Amino acid sequence: MLIRDVTEADWPHIWPFLRDICRAGETFSYPTDITEEQGRAFWLLSAPGRTVVAVDDAGTVLGTAKMNPNQMGNAAHVSSASFMVDPAHAGRGVGRALCRETLDWAAREGYRGMQFNAVVESNAPAVALYSSLGFRILGTVPDGFRHPHLGYVGLHIMFRPL
Amino acid sequence: MLIRDVTEADWPHIWPFLRDICRAGETFSYPTDITEEQGRAFWLLSAPGRTVVAVDDAGTVLGTAKMNPNQMGNAAHVSSASFMVDPAHAGRGVGRALCRETLDWAAREGYRGMQFNAVVESNAPAVALYSSLGFRILGTVPDGFRHPHLGYVGLHIMFRPL
Repeated sequence: MLIRDVTEADWPHIWPFLRDICRAGETFSYPTDITEEQGRAFWLLSAPGRTVVAVDDAGTVLGTAKMNPNQMGNAAHVSSASFMVDPAHAGRGVGRALCRETLDWAAREGYRGMQFNAVVESNAPAVALYSSLGFRILGTVPDGFRHPHLGYVGLHIMFRPL
Repeated sequence: MLIRDVTEADWPHIWPFLRDICRAGETFSYPTDITEEQGRAFWLLSAPGRTVVAVDDAGTVLGTAKMNPNQMGNAAHVSSASFMVDPAHAGRGVGRALCRETLDWAAREGYRGMQFNAVVESNAPAVALYSSLGFRILGTVPDGFRHPHLGYVGLHIMFRPL
């Protein structure tokens, strides 16, 4: 698996699974009726942000991550990141590899920490992955997310120093 | 004191104190070199957001608030808000009146809570005000804000249900 900067040519391979993940509405706070134009604007970041893809040896896009300052001004030294893995390629460590890449990027860029603002409590694999990489739950917005099947669940704010 | 929806004619009265508050860099995570165009884009919200001003009997702008969904999609039922009071009119209850207004708005609009994402720990008056209105600290980003005089201080995430 290779992780590299995204290119325009990757977008048609990202959009189908990004759209499906948003439509499912179980893990992201993007619009469930997200348009391709919105998806592109939300996901493909330019500096100081960055977007990458994870590809296999055949060049197939397995997943993607975006990373960026979490706030501006005098709070811009804390980064954030988001990850989407194509469900067809889940369970192969793609999410973990992407998360490590964003942490490496953030450390290299001089950020002092990474914060996730909205980790859905019921997304146990994500919470476990982030925890295993040194993140802790700073706090949980009670009923912060309306899961389409589970109803209202908490929304974690997670953080790790760098 | 009257609180009403902002108009284009209010902006020239908001910008000077908004700019000064941003330049001071002690309480907001906006760029300290914020431009007027950025300030306008950050502060003047259209639906589903809303921006208001507090004015005195003579029509002088004393302060302003903006309010909006804190996230999108299945997390859009939690609101957020920000407040700026002209330092020339501090200590008159303007911030409290603006905060009450945003809570009334959020309740009326059907939001289930209000979240502040970045309350600077050293901004004791703000923390005290929000606490007195029912907000609690969900968590604190360690060293999340670089105060120009105090150095790194925490950045609180605060929440209250509605």
